[in-house]
Amino acid sequence: MSEPGGRADRAARAALTWLAEPGNREVWELVQQAGAPAALDRLLAGDVQSRSLRSAIAARSAAGDARQVAETTLRYAESLGARLVVPADDEWPARVDTLATLEVESRVRVNRDTRPPLCFWVRGALPLGATLERSVAIVGARAATGYGVHVASDLAYGLTERGWTVVSGGAFGIDAAAHHGALAASGTTVAVLACGVDRPYPASNATMFARIAEQGLLISEWPPGAEPLRHRFLIRNRVIAAATAGTVVVEAAARSGATQTMSRVLALNRPAMVVPGPVTSAMSVGCHELLRTHPDARLVTSVSDVLEEVGRVGEYLEPPPRGRERVRDRLDEESALIMEALPRRGALTPEELAARARLELRTVLRRLTLLESAGLVMRAEDGIMLATREA
Amino acid sequence: MSEPGGRADRAARAALTWLAEPGNREVWELVQQAGAPAALDRLLAGDVQSRSLRSAIAARSAAGDARQVAETTLRYAESLGARLVVPADDEWPARVDTLATLEVESRVRVNRDTRPPLCFWVRGALPLGATLERSVAIVGARAATGYGVHVASDLAYGLTERGWTVVSGGAFGIDAAAHHGALAASGTTVAVLACGVDRPYPASNATMFARIAEQGLLISEWPPGAEPLRHRFLIRNRVIAAATAGTVVVEAAARSGATQTMSRVLALNRPAMVVPGPVTSAMSVGCHELLRTHPDARLVTSVSDVLEEVGRVGEYLEPPPRGRERVRDRLDEESALIMEALPRRGALTPEELAARARLELRTVLRRLTLLESAGLVMRAEDGIMLATREA
Repeated sequence: MSEPGGRADRAARAALTWLAEPGNREVWELVQQAGAPAALDRLLAGDVQSRSLRSAIAARSAAGDARQVAETTLRYAESLGARLVVPADDEWPARVDTLATLEVESRVRVNRDTRPPLCFWVRGALPLGATLERSVAIVGARAATGYGVHVASDLAYGLTERGWTVVSGGAFGIDAAAHHGALAASGTTVAVLACGVDRPYPASNATMFARIAEQGLLISEWPPGAEPLRHRFLIRNRVIAAATAGTVVVEAAARSGATQTMSRVLALNRPAMVVPGPVTSAMSVGCHELLRTHPDARLVTSVSDVLEEVGRVGEYLEPPPRGRERVRDRLDEESALIMEALPRRGALTPEELAARARLELRTVLRRLTLLESAGLVMRAEDGIMLATREA
Repeated sequence: MSEPGGRADRAARAALTWLAEPGNREVWELVQQAGAPAALDRLLAGDVQSRSLRSAIAARSAAGDARQVAETTLRYAESLGARLVVPADDEWPARVDTLATLEVESRVRVNRDTRPPLCFWVRGALPLGATLERSVAIVGARAATGYGVHVASDLAYGLTERGWTVVSGGAFGIDAAAHHGALAASGTTVAVLACGVDRPYPASNATMFARIAEQGLLISEWPPGAEPLRHRFLIRNRVIAAATAGTVVVEAAARSGATQTMSRVLALNRPAMVVPGPVTSAMSVGCHELLRTHPDARLVTSVSDVLEEVGRVGEYLEPPPRGRERVRDRLDEESALIMEALPRRGALTPEELAARARLELRTVLRRLTLLESAGLVMRAEDGIMLATREA
């Protein structure tokens, strides 16, 4: 086996992701067994089990020599300021290798082919692994509403402010809102693409992608030049699920891609977090359906809810929300009963008050002195009354 | 023991709910052991354990003779068209008796005193028990938002349309929206009051209360004339939880009364249902907190979700929501891969398509014939292309 991370290993991995789609089970297993260069030799010799893999390789090979293409692509990537990251590298994000354990039942092959990436093409200065170590994925609908955009961008802002990396795709809607929120906080954000890092898709997000490359990372399993074919988004989704400490879905229509990502997250035993929304919004139907059908999916409403899920137990715990804390909430039981018994308007004699509160008169008299000095009740001519009107 | 449901039993129960607040554990246990008339005798003789109960009875007795007051109240109720319903009556709603099993930990006595009602004062023609048999409580914030009002009223409309009774309090906001929704559907709705049925509170909902008395029921554990003291709403809440097949909270602020009702519902093992809302809305904070803290609370978004929880298993099950069903969703795996592999714009040769889809050329050619006849792809001069542009 050639030296992992050496020139031959890198070139072979680059060639393999051009020859076959990432995540392919057979390719990944060959690489694990024999190393990337030997796996490439076998693939090019047509020595593979799967008929469809063999025919795909043959079709690809008819278009060019895989080793040649890889060399050209590596040089082209270098000229772009992009680099290839392979498992032997220090900056390899080890968490994605847990995909090796992921078993998914599906009718469609791209959903079953969920093996770990062979390599990543990366644009941006930050080290990939360290950047993804404390990261949260924020995903959701392209056709997001103003509400979803607001929440996604707010969450991303708050998470990066607390030192977390945001991870998302590159689409309109929730993906873009998450990146924008992180960028606005001068935080770190990572776009995981389903095409080459030289041509992030959609092109109309170009300004955003340029800022992400400056401030965070653009990464892809596909070599520069690769097109954003539809099935690639499904393959890409497994990386978003596996590379992060947890995933938040902000808005999702029924049966959307976000639902598929969430199944991966749950299968990987990572926190699968869902932001609810108005039940009147079609863009929250997928979110509510996730919460109704997956007992392990967690409803989150804020940055602190998210940190509670992904952070080490206790580290980010915040107290549950409370209504406006009032002096009345801190009263002992008898004083509380007296306050409850007082009418909103008008006064009561201490005797009436005792009857209503079901307390003894002397208890009422003793408590009234304290309640009066606390400014909660006052003595009027016709008896005791509330000192302040309550809403 | 006197005849249950007889004149003495009724008069004693009426007197007891004037002497002591409903739900009182000691009073209820005395009635269970000795019957209502004997329990009344013992209470009036001061022969009770609890000091605060004894002092409350003493204070009440100073204001009038309990038996006398009860007789007067029964005559007054009759003149109003109201009736007293006691456990021996055919129309007694048996479900409320499960409160006998409810144990609640609380610092405050009114929260611990959760025994079943001794009787109900009822206005309206429908039989109480049959009306509550298939009923769902809809509760929530007084300071509801337009969203909450819309959802509560919509749920109530849909539930009554399907033959269910709506149950709520009489407050502004969610309570009123639920009643209005039920009334609009010419459905049955029940207002459970924390004051006399002769003076439903708040008075500004008078028109609504009048319509409820016509079309549904106004009920209360307190005798006509009783004032809506604040602590009575907490006592009343246990009846809303216990009288219904399940409870839906539509909007609730943090630490609100709806949260207390939900604890009762969960303790009674009834479906505790929660409508989510925007995480940006203070009126949904209590709802989301319930969903986050109670694993048994169920998120509901629609009438069918609610019926799924309260209905007999299977009877109201509806299929999960689906996105717009497209022909593409019904394709076999190979056709789906071909469709995925086609670019949004431009054409591919069958060979290129085979490579991208990772399928054999002859498979592609066979499927293309079918896809073309289904109108999904078309043959152009330079190859195969998508027949329709997808969003």
